[in-house]
Amino acid sequence: MSIHELAPGATPTRRLGVLGSGDVGRALASGLAAAGHSVVLGTRDPDSADLVTWAAGVGVGLAAPAAAVRDAELLLNATPGAASVDAVTAAGGADLDGLVLLDVSNPLDFSTGAPTVFTGMDDSIGERLQRAFPRLRVVKSLCTVNNAVMVNPAALPEPTAMFVAGDDLDAKQAVAGLLGSLGWPADQILDLGGIVASRELERNILFWLRIYGAVGTANFNLRVVRDS
Amino acid sequence: MSIHELAPGATPTRRLGVLGSGDVGRALASGLAAAGHSVVLGTRDPDSADLVTWAAGVGVGLAAPAAAVRDAELLLNATPGAASVDAVTAAGGADLDGLVLLDVSNPLDFSTGAPTVFTGMDDSIGERLQRAFPRLRVVKSLCTVNNAVMVNPAALPEPTAMFVAGDDLDAKQAVAGLLGSLGWPADQILDLGGIVASRELERNILFWLRIYGAVGTANFNLRVVRDS
Repeated sequence: MSIHELAPGATPTRRLGVLGSGDVGRALASGLAAAGHSVVLGTRDPDSADLVTWAAGVGVGLAAPAAAVRDAELLLNATPGAASVDAVTAAGGADLDGLVLLDVSNPLDFSTGAPTVFTGMDDSIGERLQRAFPRLRVVKSLCTVNNAVMVNPAALPEPTAMFVAGDDLDAKQAVAGLLGSLGWPADQILDLGGIVASRELERNILFWLRIYGAVGTANFNLRVVRDS
Repeated sequence: MSIHELAPGATPTRRLGVLGSGDVGRALASGLAAAGHSVVLGTRDPDSADLVTWAAGVGVGLAAPAAAVRDAELLLNATPGAASVDAVTAAGGADLDGLVLLDVSNPLDFSTGAPTVFTGMDDSIGERLQRAFPRLRVVKSLCTVNNAVMVNPAALPEPTAMFVAGDDLDAKQAVAGLLGSLGWPADQILDLGGIVASRELERNILFWLRIYGAVGTANFNLRVVRDS
């Protein structure tokens, strides 16, 4: 499909639930709040003094996972890949009919020394989530860049690419709209196909680590250049 | 390492041996000949009328594999990944001490339906070649773009990235010089590390296929954009 079909012109403000209170979850939540969305971070410890201070500073709400999801129009998973199915379960994911789940997780595995992905060649966290929660509409995106670039692509000197994958077109369009609100350029938002394409998007973390080693900064991304 | 260290200013004309008379081998041989190099294509059938006509038209020599390699300063493998070790064996690779082997092959496997790589997560053709021929200095590159872009990156509207991997720095510098002669820009030639990084470069074919599906042309490439 044309990438332009994915990118609606208007981007309404959304009520968003973010699962994951680590670096990725906080960066996403604060970046989305700064973009004007209403964001609640779901965490097992919403009374943590550290989190409460952070949340007040960036205008993000805190709640237990199930409460964070209750009024959300769109749910984001920013938990570690190995914990993602459990985290969405704790948020009541099995009961959420039709909700879009934007999964940004990575299956990175350092346990054997050299980095690899624990999902291998024929699986991905995106697919695991879609299988575990067939009533959710899972979209994979944002896992190909670091936290800073995720929520502020305009900080790079040129527009760069962001990929989406998922089985539901409407869900991908909703995510494209959300990406647009963060500054991702419509003509570099590329639809790679069904949720099965999460395999390539997630394994890209290994390529990303190599490029990171070569360029010496984590604040980089790829731009797709086509013949004109 | 800095990418700039990889890209020598002067690019001497080279005597090149190319293994593989399929689409990739022919595109590489003719593109390198057009760039001023002296190119001999190694093939089991150097008397093929089809090949002879093609070779005369593009100024490429034809020879049996061992003869094609005999005077080469740099060897290129453009055979299919599954045939590459055999092809280099036929060219006498085990006896070639210190020669640089630029491997552009891919381990693409369509036998199970959906495309995958037959090397899995923990191996690559680049590594297999280096293991099989420890006296060659194997460098992986060029496998992340199609034939047309390989030899004519300037046809794209912006400079784009080319990656190299290999255990020998001098060999990578020789390959960077060759890439420069084809028009690859020095500041987008990135050294991803040892030959083990062939894994990421080769598996990228699966990501490439997804992007190809999204953009609708095989004439594309990725540009690395860094914070400035």
